[in-house]
Amino acid sequence: MSIKVVAFDADDTLWVNEPFFYETERKLCALLEDYLPHHTVSQELYRMQIQNLPLYGYGVKSFILSMIEMAMSVSEKTISLDVVEKIIGLGKEMLEKPIELLDDVEHVLHSLSGRYRLVVATKGDLLDQERKLKKSGLEHYFHHIEIMSEKREIDYRKLIKHLDIEPEEFVMIGNSLKSDVLPVLTMGGHGFHVPFHTTWAFEQIDHRIEHANFKEFTSLKEVLAHL
Amino acid sequence: MSIKVVAFDADDTLWVNEPFFYETERKLCALLEDYLPHHTVSQELYRMQIQNLPLYGYGVKSFILSMIEMAMSVSEKTISLDVVEKIIGLGKEMLEKPIELLDDVEHVLHSLSGRYRLVVATKGDLLDQERKLKKSGLEHYFHHIEIMSEKREIDYRKLIKHLDIEPEEFVMIGNSLKSDVLPVLTMGGHGFHVPFHTTWAFEQIDHRIEHANFKEFTSLKEVLAHL
Repeated sequence: MSIKVVAFDADDTLWVNEPFFYETERKLCALLEDYLPHHTVSQELYRMQIQNLPLYGYGVKSFILSMIEMAMSVSEKTISLDVVEKIIGLGKEMLEKPIELLDDVEHVLHSLSGRYRLVVATKGDLLDQERKLKKSGLEHYFHHIEIMSEKREIDYRKLIKHLDIEPEEFVMIGNSLKSDVLPVLTMGGHGFHVPFHTTWAFEQIDHRIEHANFKEFTSLKEVLAHL
Repeated sequence: MSIKVVAFDADDTLWVNEPFFYETERKLCALLEDYLPHHTVSQELYRMQIQNLPLYGYGVKSFILSMIEMAMSVSEKTISLDVVEKIIGLGKEMLEKPIELLDDVEHVLHSLSGRYRLVVATKGDLLDQERKLKKSGLEHYFHHIEIMSEKREIDYRKLIKHLDIEPEEFVMIGNSLKSDVLPVLTMGGHGFHVPFHTTWAFEQIDHRIEHANFKEFTSLKEVLAHL
């Protein structure tokens, strides 16, 4: 491997994210329990998120809007405005959450910095992701931050063109096989998978990956043995 | 001038934007006319947008959330959920609007392309701005698209560092003196102002600009005489 750029996914790779969405979803279930059983709320919320994704994209503001739309829809507009107000409050709480770094993140970034150009490549809301990076205290490690509306092969091709490197000089480290690993392997780059205990259903894939440029780890610090 | 990069603001510089926000605001006023006179709705909406700006940032999703919050607040939560549903519908309409290019945009981009690196530098929502650029048919003219959470001097400094040029090699063309011109002049770049008939109150400034690197035009095609 002649790696020049090491790119990190952010949510659930550098810091905790998905559990906050689940926590909010549980609170939403409680708000709607007069209308629907919990598992139906979860299903309907997921359906609404996927339906809205092409129009709204990823991130907390989209999530707030989908929660409101879903609550109105399943209740046939019988919920009170207090519920809408509480949903918006839950969303604002998410935007204001402190950052919880995952294990070994500082150690790994410190070890790699100077030896590689380090990059953050993340989906989500522009302002929210910038704010999280700032709050994380990790900003100084990174040469470049790319907030992407999607993580498909074409988006990674734009990124490496922009970084002025070849695909084989690029490694992406992340918790999502679908977004962080597969499209990068297809492009000819390297994909390192560091699973997180919770993965959003939309990011899950149901087949095994076998590829010369693919590596799977159980914790982030294991990447150091390969870089 | 030894300009290398010509950067264009997008909304109300390349295509119509602010009038769609006003159109939506007028529809919101109609929805709320049982509660408040129109001018009060406008004032309260503006207040809510500015209050939410640090948390939500710019763009249509933020606007939808601010409209809902403002409607609940001014009605003391007496509006019906139909109003909330209609507000979300108004927002989705905005996201799906076709692009209306402003006069001379194609001609100006065509004339400048090949002679300068052309860049889009715009605030707003990541996915929405990418989508608008794609729908505009102008994407191929641009070497780089920068969607920014803010347009302060520090943000432009990051942009030119990223473009690997000096401030004096950069000209920004846009309709907002506050966002497109002043911070660029302060940095040492060039600012060309092409006013649009409608400017959001938040983007207005109340003093005249006098600066060697500042130029004011009445239409976009006039920039060609200076580039």
